[in-house]
Formats: sequence, C-alpha cells, structure tokens
Amino acid sequence: MKLLLLNPNTSAGVTQLMTDVAQRAAAPGTEIVPCTATRGVPYIATRTEAQIGGAIALEMLAEQHEKVDAAIIAAFGDPGLFAARETFDIPVIGLAEAAMLTACMAGRRFAIVTFAQALGPWYEECVRDHGLRERCAGIRMLDTPFQAISEVGTEKEDLLVELAQRAIVEDEADVLIFAGAPLSGLAERVADRIPVPVVDQVVAAVKQAEALVALRLRKATAGTYRRPAAKPTIGLAGALTARLEHRDS
Amino acid sequence: MKLLLLNPNTSAGVTQLMTDVAQRAAAPGTEIVPCTATRGVPYIATRTEAQIGGAIALEMLAEQHEKVDAAIIAAFGDPGLFAARETFDIPVIGLAEAAMLTACMAGRRFAIVTFAQALGPWYEECVRDHGLRERCAGIRMLDTPFQAISEVGTEKEDLLVELAQRAIVEDEADVLIFAGAPLSGLAERVADRIPVPVVDQVVAAVKQAEALVALRLRKATAGTYRRPAAKPTIGLAGALTARLEHRDS
Amino acid sequence: MKLLLLNPNTSAGVTQLMTDVAQRAAAPGTEIVPCTATRGVPYIATRTEAQIGGAIALEMLAEQHEKVDAAIIAAFGDPGLFAARETFDIPVIGLAEAAMLTACMAGRRFAIVTFAQALGPWYEECVRDHGLRERCAGIRMLDTPFQAISEVGTEKEDLLVELAQRAIVEDEADVLIFAGAPLSGLAERVADRIPVPVVDQVVAAVKQAEALVALRLRKATAGTYRRPAAKPTIGLAGALTARLEHRDS
Amino acid sequence: MKLLLLNPNTSAGVTQLMTDVAQRAAAPGTEIVPCTATRGVPYIATRTEAQIGGAIALEMLAEQHEKVDAAIIAAFGDPGLFAARETFDIPVIGLAEAAMLTACMAGRRFAIVTFAQALGPWYEECVRDHGLRERCAGIRMLDTPFQAISEVGTEKEDLLVELAQRAIVEDEADVLIFAGAPLSGLAERVADRIPVPVVDQVVAAVKQAEALVALRLRKATAGTYRRPAAKPTIGLAGALTARLEHRDS
Amino acid sequence: MKLLLLNPNTSAGVTQLMTDVAQRAAAPGTEIVPCTATRGVPYIATRTEAQIGGAIALEMLAEQHEKVDAAIIAAFGDPGLFAARETFDIPVIGLAEAAMLTACMAGRRFAIVTFAQALGPWYEECVRDHGLRERCAGIRMLDTPFQAISEVGTEKEDLLVELAQRAIVEDEADVLIFAGAPLSGLAERVADRIPVPVVDQVVAAVKQAEALVALRLRKATAGTYRRPAAKPTIGLAGALTARLEHRDS
Amino acid sequence: MKLLLLNPNTSAGVTQLMTDVAQRAAAPGTEIVPCTATRGVPYIATRTEAQIGGAIALEMLAEQHEKVDAAIIAAFGDPGLFAARETFDIPVIGLAEAAMLTACMAGRRFAIVTFAQALGPWYEECVRDHGLRERCAGIRMLDTPFQAISEVGTEKEDLLVELAQRAIVEDEADVLIFAGAPLSGLAERVADRIPVPVVDQVVAAVKQAEALVALRLRKATAGTYRRPAAKPTIGLAGALTARLEHRDS
Repeated sequence: MKLLLLNPNTSAGVTQLMTDVAQRAAAPGTEIVPCTATRGVPYIATRTEAQIGGAIALEMLAEQHEKVDAAIIAAFGDPGLFAARETFDIPVIGLAEAAMLTACMAGRRFAIVTFAQALGPWYEECVRDHGLRERCAGIRMLDTPFQAISEVGTEKEDLLVELAQRAIVEDEADVLIFAGAPLSGLAERVADRIPVPVVDQVVAAVKQAEALVALRLRKATAGTYRRPAAKPTIGLAGALTARLEHRDS
Repeated sequence: MKLLLLNPNTSAGVTQLMTDVAQRAAAPGTEIVPCTATRGVPYIATRTEAQIGGAIALEMLAEQHEKVDAAIIAAFGDPGLFAARETFDIPVIGLAEAAMLTACMAGRRFAIVTFAQALGPWYEECVRDHGLRERCAGIRMLDTPFQAISEVGTEKEDLLVELAQRAIVEDEADVLIFAGAPLSGLAERVADRIPVPVVDQVVAAVKQAEALVALRLRKATAGTYRRPAAKPTIGLAGALTARLEHRDS
Repeated sequence: MKLLLLNPNTSAGVTQLMTDVAQRAAAPGTEIVPCTATRGVPYIATRTEAQIGGAIALEMLAEQHEKVDAAIIAAFGDPGLFAARETFDIPVIGLAEAAMLTACMAGRRFAIVTFAQALGPWYEECVRDHGLRERCAGIRMLDTPFQAISEVGTEKEDLLVELAQRAIVEDEADVLIFAGAPLSGLAERVADRIPVPVVDQVVAAVKQAEALVALRLRKATAGTYRRPAAKPTIGLAGALTARLEHRDS
Repeated sequence: MKLLLLNPNTSAGVTQLMTDVAQRAAAPGTEIVPCTATRGVPYIATRTEAQIGGAIALEMLAEQHEKVDAAIIAAFGDPGLFAARETFDIPVIGLAEAAMLTACMAGRRFAIVTFAQALGPWYEECVRDHGLRERCAGIRMLDTPFQAISEVGTEKEDLLVELAQRAIVEDEADVLIFAGAPLSGLAERVADRIPVPVVDQVVAAVKQAEALVALRLRKATAGTYRRPAAKPTIGLAGALTARLEHRDS
Repeated sequence: MKLLLLNPNTSAGVTQLMTDVAQRAAAPGTEIVPCTATRGVPYIATRTEAQIGGAIALEMLAEQHEKVDAAIIAAFGDPGLFAARETFDIPVIGLAEAAMLTACMAGRRFAIVTFAQALGPWYEECVRDHGLRERCAGIRMLDTPFQAISEVGTEKEDLLVELAQRAIVEDEADVLIFAGAPLSGLAERVADRIPVPVVDQVVAAVKQAEALVALRLRKATAGTYRRPAAKPTIGLAGALTARLEHRDS
Repeated sequence: MKLLLLNPNTSAGVTQLMTDVAQRAAAPGTEIVPCTATRGVPYIATRTEAQIGGAIALEMLAEQHEKVDAAIIAAFGDPGLFAARETFDIPVIGLAEAAMLTACMAGRRFAIVTFAQALGPWYEECVRDHGLRERCAGIRMLDTPFQAISEVGTEKEDLLVELAQRAIVEDEADVLIFAGAPLSGLAERVADRIPVPVVDQVVAAVKQAEALVALRLRKATAGTYRRPAAKPTIGLAGALTARLEHRDS
C-alpha cells in the first residue's frame, strides 16, 4: 500500500523527520509517500493557522489522493481532518487522532506534552473535537523559545522528559504522547526514562492507516461522512475544484 | 459604528437579503458594511466547505478589519470564527453564536430549523463547539430540493413553519432559530404562526455586535485569544500575510 | 423603551450605583427604571437568600411589569429569573446570564471574580443552571471583610484586580467578569490593568435587554416558558396574586 | 425521633394522604409531625410556584425545626431544599431527592411518572439539580385534566400504570417513581401490575430521614452547607427573620 | 429482617469490625449475618482483585441469598454489585454506593479519604460507575505502609483526619466518607474533629438495606435488572451454577 | 509475533470462527494462538457472566501470557480487560475496545448491532466504561431466538443487515459494528449491502494488537496501570496465584 504522509506545514525538515520515523514503522508492503505544503506556515500552532492549514491540506489531498491508498494529515491537531474524511474516498487519519486513540488502549488517561505554549489551546480543542476529554489527563507545554523547528525535539529533550515525568505524577497520566510533528521519533529515544508507555504519533498513525486499509472499509454513501453533492466553486485550487465539482472521475 | 457583514459565501443575493434585515435592525448610529466572498462556494453546507470558507473569511477580514468597528461572520455555522477572534483586534461574532446565545435568554432549549439535509452535521458540530449541546433541543432539516438559494426562505416558508411547529412539540423547544443565511428575515414574516419566540439570526448578530462595541472590550494580550506572535508565511493572500507576519501596523 | 432595573436586594446605594452604570450604557431611547426591594436582605449571598430574594423579585415584577418593556433582575446569581421568564410576558434577563453569555462572545472561558467567600457556591450553581460550566474557567473570591456593601468595589479595587490577574494566569481565562451588583462599573475603571476583555455585568444586561426588545420576541404559548395556567393562591402579595390567578388582564 | 413532614402546598388533604403513608412506613420510634403551608398554592407545579413555595418552606422550617429531629420537604421537586439544608441544623430531605437516590439502589435508570403536563419542566430541572440526569430514563406526564388534587392518584390509577409500563418498555427504565405528592401510596396499590421495582416517594423519604438521624451527622461548620453568617433582614416572617439574623439561639 | 454482611475479602478481622459497627446501627428487628470470603485476597485494592473478588461475591451470595432478606457487599468499590443485583431476588447494596448516595443528602459534594494509594483508581472507577462524578469533590489517599489491615483505622487515625481536613479546605467538600472496609467505625470516633458531616459506610449500608426492605420492592421482570435467562455453565461453584442454570428453585 | 486470541467463553466453535477471521487479517509475521475457556458459559451476555468471565480471562492469561507478545480478550464487552492490562506486562486489547476506537477513525458516531436483546445493557456499560458515549449513535439488538451460537451470524444475516440499515438512517450512524464474537466475519460478507464503513471486531483487534506491538510500549511502572504489588491469595487458580503473589518470575 501507498501511504501519503501529508505535512500541511512548509517545513521540509520536519517532513523528513517524520518520513524517517514512518518508514521504520511501516510494514513490509507499506510505502511512505511524503508531501510538504508549498504554501502556509512553517508549523501550525494556532486556531488561525489550523483554519488555513486545513484548507491547504485539502488542496494537497485533492492532488494526491488518487495515487495512494490512505493518507495521514501529519500535524498534531489534525487540521482539515474531518473535512478530508468527508470529501475523499480513501481513509484519512490525523496524527493527534491516531496517537490519542492508540493511547486509549494502553491506559485510562493520556498526557500530551509539547514544545510551545502557543499550541495549548489548539490541542485542547482537538481533544474535545475527538470527544476524548475524559481520557485526557492534561496538556503540558514548554514555554522557552527554541532554535530550529525541526531540531526542537533534540534541543529540548531533557526538558520534555522532565515535563513528561511531572505530567505522570501530577496529572495521574497512564500514557504519554509527545505531540507536535517536530517531536516525532522522540518517544523511541527517551522511552526508558519515562515510567509509562509512550506513544509515538507517527508510528501510531502509520499503524492505524495500515489497520484501516486492512479493514477494506468502503466509502460511506450515507451518514455524515458521505461525499457531499457536487457544487460550483469560484477561485479554488485546480484539483480541489475538480473534486468539489465532481469533475474528477 | 461600522459593522462588517461578512458573507463567506459567493451569493451576492444572500448578502443583499441579510443586509436588508441588518439595516432594519441596526441602531441609528450603526452602518452595515456588506461584503461578499469573491471565491468559494454559493453557500457553505459541509465540513469541507466550512474549512475552506473559514480560511476565505480570514482573508476577507484581513482586508476589511481596519475599516470597521466590529464584524459578523454571516454564515450560520460560523466558519473561521474562533480564528478570526484570535487574529483580529475588533469584536467578531458568528451568526450561529449570536442566534444561539440570544436564544438562551428566551428559554431553556432552542431548536434549529434549516432548509437542507446537508447542513445538519455541520450545525451539530457548531452547537458542540460553542458548548451549547445542553441548550439545544434538536436540529431539523427539510429534505427536498430548492430552486434559488437566496429565495429558499420564501419558497419553503410553509414547510419550514411546519418543521418549526414539530420541533416545538416533539423536541420540547422553548425558542426557535431559523438557521442558514438565506433564511434571514423569515422570523419576522412567520413569528405569529409559531407559538414560541423566534430569534432572527441576523437581527441577533447585529444587536450582539452593538453590545460588544458598547462594552468597549479590549483586545486580549493574555489568554488563548491574544494575537498570535508574528510568523513567516508562504503563498497566502496579501492582506492576510501582512496580518500574520505583523507587517500591517 | 423602558427597562426595569430590579434590585432584589434592599441596598438603595447599590441600586443607585447600577443605575448610573446602566444609564451611561443605555441607547438613546432607553429609559432605566430603577426599583429596590423593600423587604429581604442588603445583598443576596447564599442559597437561602436567593430562594427568598427570588420570590421577592417576583412580587416586584408583578407590580412593575406592565409599566416597562423589559426587566433586568439585577443581582448576579439571577434569583427568580427562570420563574420570572415563565410568568411574565416581557423579556426578563439576569445579571449573571447577560454577563456570562456576552463573555462567551469574547473568548472561550470566562473567570468570575467577586468580593465575598460566601458567594462562591451560589455562583457555581448559577453557572451550572445556565449550562455554562464548560465555558467557565473558575470562580475566585476575596475572603477579607469589607466596610460598606455599596463601596466594596472601590475599597477592594486593587485586591480584585490582583485576583483577576491570577484567574487569567492560573485558570487560563480568556475573559473576566467582576460579579456581584456592588462591583458594577468596576470594569471600566480597571480594564487597562487586566490583559483580557472585562465584561461589565450591568452594561451587558442593558445591551442584552435592548437586543431582546429589538427582536420583538413573542411570549411563548407553548414550550416550558408558556405562562402557567391560572391557579388559586392564599396569602401571597397582591399584584403577584393577581398575576398567578390570571386576574390581572 | 420526630420527623417533620412539611407540605409546602396548601392542600391539607394531600398532607393527610402523605401522613398516612409515612406513618405506615415509619420505624417504631418515629413520630410523623405533619405541617401544611398556610399560604401559597394548592400544589406546586411550575418554576414560579417552586420559587415561592421554597421560600414558604423556609418560613415553615424556621417555625418548626427546633421541635423535630429531621424534616422532609414533601413536594416532589424539593422546593427550598438546598437553602433549608444550608440554614438549619437538622437533616432536611426532599421527596424527589429521597425517591431518586433510593431508586438508584434498585436499578440503573429510573423513570418518573406524574399526573400533569405542567410538572415536566420543573421535574427535569430537579433531576439536573441533583446531578442525576444520567440515572434518569425519562419523565412522563398525563395530559388530561383531573378532579380533586388529593384524589388524582385514585382517579387516574389505570392511566398512570399504563404510562409506567410504557416508560419501562420505551425508555428502558429499571425502576419506577410515581412523582408528585398526591401520588403517595400509589406504589403499594399497583406494584404488582408493574414489572420493575416501584419506589414510593414518601416511604423513601421517611426511611432516608431515619437513616440520616441514625448516622448522627453533625451540622457543617465548613464547606458550602455551613450556616450562613448573620445578616440583617427587612420584612421577612418572624421565625425566619430570627434564624437569618442569628437571634434564635 | 436478616441482613447479610458479605465481606468478599478473606480478612475475618475486618468482617468482625464491620459487624460490630453494623450491629450498633441496626434497627431493633435487624439481625446482621456476617460472612467472610474463604478464597481471594485479604483486601481488594485493584481492578484485578475487584474482578476476582466480584466473582467470589457472587459465589457467596448464591450460597446465602435464600437465608436473608437483603445483602451488603461490604467492600468499598462494590465488587460484583451490579451483577448481584441482576442475578438475585433480594436487594443487594454496595458499601460505596450506600455511603455516596447517603452523602448526597448531606451536601453537594463528598470527599473520599482512604488508607492506601493503590485504592485510588478503583474508587475513581466506582464513582464513575455510579454516575456520581459531579457529586464527588475528590479522592485522597495515604501513601505510607501500614501494619495490620484490620487495625489501619486506628493506626492512621490522625493522618486520616488530617487528610479529611485538607479535602474539605482544598477540594471544597461538604461531606466526608472514610472509604475502605477497615475504616468502618472511624467516623464515630473522629466526627468532632472534622467540620462537615462524616458518613460511616457501614452505618449507611445498614440503613439503606433497611430502607429497601421497608419499600418491599419487587424483583424486576423487565428492564436491565431482570433475572437473566437460564444458561448452561461449566466448572463454576455449586450454588452459583444452580442459580445461573435456574435449578435452584 | 504471537497473538493470543483468548475466548473467555466455552464455545470452541466461536473460537474457530474468530481464529479464521483473525488469521486472514493477520500480517505475515503474526501467528494467532487461539484459546477457549474451559469453564464458564457458552457466551457471555450479562453483567453476571461478564463478572465471572472476566475472572476466568485472568486465569487464562496467567497461563498463557508468557508465551505470546500480545493478547485479545475476544468477547465484545471486554470482560476483565482493565484488570488484565494492569496485571500483565504484554499489551492486552478488548474486542469492543478495538472495534470502537477503530470505528472512531472512520466517522463521527458508530452504531452497534448485535444478535440478542440480553446483550444491550452490558454493551451500553462497555461503551460508557471506555468513555465513548458521545461517539456511539446507539445499540440495536435482534429479539428473536437463534439456533446455534456459532452459526447465529449466518442464520440471522438478513435481519442483522436490516437492523444495520435502520441504525444508519434512524440513529444517524457513520460507521457500523456488528458486535458479539459469533458475528465475526459478517462484515466482510455484507459490507456491500450497508452504505457506511463496517468495522469487523476481530480484524480491528488483530490490527490494533499489531500496532501496539509495533510501538514497543513499555509496561507502566507508574500511573494506574502499573503492576499491583504482591499480595497473598487463597484458593485462586495456580498460575493466577503465582502472578498475583509475584512468584512467577
């Protein structure tokens, strides 16, 4: 199977980081197809950037979806996820969604630890949007500036581990998630310093994508995730226009 | 005060309809400044269209916000609302938000009645996003095709009143909201055929915008709605780019 | 329009304070009609006082409702509000209700800050009764004695601002409400020392009353807020007796 | 022990009905002390009547509380209950509270069946106020007029049993509560026609009052149910005034 | 009436402790019939022990239920309670259930204080299973080792009182529950050092059992607590086998 | 990897059915190790059977856990799951848990359709225990008797498809789960007659087990799922005794 790793951010370095983790986690027959946004922001961190980034993710999916068997929206916070699931026929999974649902199988409550204060409100809305507030022990964020976005996981490794340890003790978390695309791969490096299971967001997303493909789920033609009816559009990106106007098949 | 009536849809007819209702409801000193999306879809009805339409609303706001004192995102479902509230300094209000919060002051539970099946899931998410599920008696939708989007309120008037009556009896609603921009002004025409208060979404939004301006609320510099820090962007619309990169003041 | 500012407490000084704030906030055509309880307690602070004060509010409304276009129950906690909304034909709004719903349009979560420990439990029930727990970041109270009830906002200004600042940082509030009738007008004085929007309860209530009147909502004849059927009573206050027995029209 | 059966309604016939049921259910040492409101309405059925009736219940308790060991507020809906629990030193129990909490020990979800449409909204708020929505399968009401309030249980016996049977099948209730003071004693008469346990509200209240007395619970001097501090009052009933001003001991 | 005090733990000393408390609390006609598990663990403290202990409780009930009028599953956490209520005809009550529901009649929120860290997660699930999270102010646990399980209430008396005092101040609890069978009787000894009502779990359970018997509730033949249909079993304990296969009557 | 398919029921035919489905779904390196309970009931359907079956599952796991890399508790309802996750070091997954969490990635709300009325209450508690009520559109059950438990999926195929279709239309489900071990494999046969994705519980469980193993999660030594401390036991099964007393390693 071909699995699109769609980074709605413009940081190619982060895409590379995630692709490496994804490739190591992939089953023999799974090919990771990376794809980085050519417009947008280096990393999505706010409601505004998620609103814009989600729309960009849809444009990217419109261009790529026919070439792959499933797609991961590879930004924790899952910009555009529900829209993508509605409009495209292939399974689409969010990085946050995959990490959180997987974490639910390893304990009662997961903690989310991330590298920037700004991400907190967006992640909180993400937890709520997935209906998982009861399963979330809390969200903790570093509040110091960092150097390069794709290196933040290495630069702040010790501080992130400390934050994780505090989340476990003070928030009574059973499972830990390092959240934010730049922290991909961190779990593997630090798991032995953290006394609960640590779920890597990219590994989780790859395995969940493989699971959905294995289930051979059909595209809904009823319910709220059936493909919307064709509608005329003005001024949208080419492939997305074709998809929304049903002129793509 | 100048109040931007921002229609994130491309239907100028619907903007006209809303502007008429808004103008009639406005206080003496309030000037309605209408604005119709130049790209997007005729009317937003799905998660996908809301994702795209919300991003377009941000582009429009970036161009207009300095000319007005407050803005209404004039599509029930409030595309881009929370992002707009975060990124801009003026009060921004959603049509759904204004209608629902106002309805809370007229009864325990409001019913939402609209003209197309496709709108249901999006409106349901909107109710949840505002934390108002407990106050919502239900959402009811017509399921017959209509002719022109800006005329649907007239064309389906009797069917919509019937649906409203059923919502009151079967869902035990105390208040009624006709939802969807094209239904603006319907409340006034049919209020005497409906045995509970009917909140017009546009009237509510205008009065709420006036209320927020009267309160002279400052822009947050703390909390989750402070303006996000400047961030480099690629390929976004001009005014929005300036706003996100803090090159606009 | 005439707007009844009904103070269910016996403190005329507090009524005066609120009337001043209300008058400044009112639209040109709005006349504030103040009214102070002639029996009850100086300021309602407990479940017991709210039970009694709510019944007194109904007596006052029975006497005044025909002379005005809308009414504000001007005690944060909204004693008797839902009963009043049910029994009278004019729009009736609570101080807490107006402040909280308005705050919802300025951020995700509001904090409530007040001047006396005793008010906490009642305010907490008030938040719950309005179905707004998810939108409330917390309630914080001073715990030092104060001199005169109508001066407490001035006397404790600095302490209240400090408490507000802590609510914003520690409870992650986006909006602030100074709650309790004697704190009316405080928002205006201290807004520039608080880094999030501050909603004044009286200003909010006046603008919401004006909004409801502008919507020209009909009195429900169905749903849970229709007027209750006539019922014989014994020993109740004159005007209220007439209203409950349907002998008033 | 002496147990006050406080009927906040003015229907002496209903008090008699409840007293008979209570006396049969009481343990050997328990003496039922009935007490009927001398002002108010024949039976509380709306938010307004509950607001007023709750205040009257406080007046009655202020007169009686020193003569008894515990009190039942004997109107389903529990008018004034939380206020009474706060202000008086003896255990005070509500008819609805006792019935619902007892029902929780006999099944997952209880259904509430009552004799008048008007009672629905008030009972719904009562369920919510006790935090028991999750345990309530639904509320069902007759909608036909009745003759005498104290005879309604006999007059409508068959219709109420039918309604109970429907609640069990359609709402998946495990336990049944006939709610409303005039339905006291009905459980015993019809239990063998209903396929789930039926909790009599008065029997439950008497046994719960006995349980609380047996536990010899102290009056709180901390927490939200400590006695409020003394406060000056104007124009309230004599005994209540003394209690609120702490001039009663 | 005969009341089975079923200890699903193997600690006869704890059974003795509870029996003493129960006997003192029992009404004149109530005979306490104690019964200690002959297999299992000394005291249930984890999900695993609750799973096993609940199955053992069913075996014990199958042997005893015909000899008594009601039963208490006398381990806080209520192992096997809902299963027992479903399978047997007599009222069955849990220690936690009785304590928590009784506490609801003495305040808004109860705090749970216990003697071992390990019990926290199980108790938290217990609160949730009863639908009482909203009524629970928090769970606090000692984290120091103790000597003998049946003496832990005496050994740790001062520490437990301190913990209770902190729960009241920091968690804003209105009522206190000392949880865990070995803490039975502690309430009586320390009530005067704790400023809110303290509910003894065994006293509450005895009084609730007496209440249910007084209500003469029938066994459900509909709803989710009707007796399950007969089913063949393999390798289960004798009396339980007979009960499940309907060969016992 | 070796994956234990632990059937806590005694029906070998159902184990065979699930093993076939599991083997087809397994990745190349995954070996399914089936295991059928030697005591208990043919199929768990009630709270009582789940209490007993969960304890039996723990006995089985104690015997098998060292021979495998992960385990599935292969009864929808997940008897003993949380206890197993706490006590054993390998990942343990429930059939219901895997199906429901996987379904969350294919739509907003899943419907559960099963073959016997008796299963409803247990499944409802299962949904609640996983914190997924908001994601569950409803549970629907056939109410006609069936012939052989391992053939019920074939015997009732048409009726189950019909029920599924009604769940989609009437309960607005986006995804469908055929629940109950005997319905394993049904999804594949009928997927093309159902207009939304159908998640097969066994396929989901196998893929989730593979995902957890791929994540190489460590056993918690902190949080609520750390292994409980050693404790003496009496009369429990041999391997389980060793595990609980920490005499197994």
